[in-house]
Amino acid sequence: MVGLIGIQKNDEFYMAEALKEAVKAFEEGEVPIGAVIVHEPPGENPRIIARAHNQVELLRDATAHAEMIAITQAEEHLENWRLQFCTIYVTVEPCMMCCGAMVLSRIKRLCYGARDEKAGAVESLGNLLAIPQLNHSIEVTAGIRQEECSQILSEFFQKVREGKRKS
Amino acid sequence: MVGLIGIQKNDEFYMAEALKEAVKAFEEGEVPIGAVIVHEPPGENPRIIARAHNQVELLRDATAHAEMIAITQAEEHLENWRLQFCTIYVTVEPCMMCCGAMVLSRIKRLCYGARDEKAGAVESLGNLLAIPQLNHSIEVTAGIRQEECSQILSEFFQKVREGKRKS
Repeated sequence: MVGLIGIQKNDEFYMAEALKEAVKAFEEGEVPIGAVIVHEPPGENPRIIARAHNQVELLRDATAHAEMIAITQAEEHLENWRLQFCTIYVTVEPCMMCCGAMVLSRIKRLCYGARDEKAGAVESLGNLLAIPQLNHSIEVTAGIRQEECSQILSEFFQKVREGKRKS
Repeated sequence: MVGLIGIQKNDEFYMAEALKEAVKAFEEGEVPIGAVIVHEPPGENPRIIARAHNQVELLRDATAHAEMIAITQAEEHLENWRLQFCTIYVTVEPCMMCCGAMVLSRIKRLCYGARDEKAGAVESLGNLLAIPQLNHSIEVTAGIRQEECSQILSEFFQKVREGKRKS
């Protein structure tokens, strides 16, 4: 079910914007994952309506993933909890919680960069978005700017390991 | 995997507290689901550290489920995103998002009342908490005050249908 939809025009551009958010997370000592949400109603130009990065440590909140913060921002922007005509770009394969939130908020399309072998719920632990009883289905494109998205994570965890070795 | 752990002392009491939260949701026109989180470190008395109800409509936020709000409250109370020694009582079987959040926040035990045939992710859509690769496993007890938890939902949806018929 993954990668059903091929890479579309502007996907690389928007993923670069999500990567800028991941860089902010890196600089704040958070696991570097970023997300943006693009709203594109029929006949209108697409517009970024949410930008967020992982803030688990800052907020001391295990649910403060980039996707969750971006979804709440987009809902506030649209004054609606239904994110119709919205695509979320996230640098890493979303976890179970974030996949559930995307279904609940009726996001139209999910684009992600790197796989998350440990907790990714779109291809790594199986594809939870493909559970047939779910009342909303999401188009998925995987692997956009995969190397850059993966590289920033590797650098972060290497830095963490080095920090531990020194202390 | 569900109901592995039998009903324990005080489970019915705490579920009654979660039901009080569901009543608040009902009165606010929200789908009536409530949750409380109980913290019980070894050798200490258990204490309710979070109480919440569904606020999707009020907050215009598809992620504002009772469990999510309760988890964030408990994290704030403990000043930690790891909810060690915590049990969550929720009136209805949690969805995929909330199950994911429980795993992320390392909740020890989940107790719920009624099944959610459409979106429940512990027995109805399968048991997502039992995915073997997850890095945290949660004890589950289902069916606590099941009838009361289910009854308030039925009443709510009946009222909604009647309202639609009149309008």
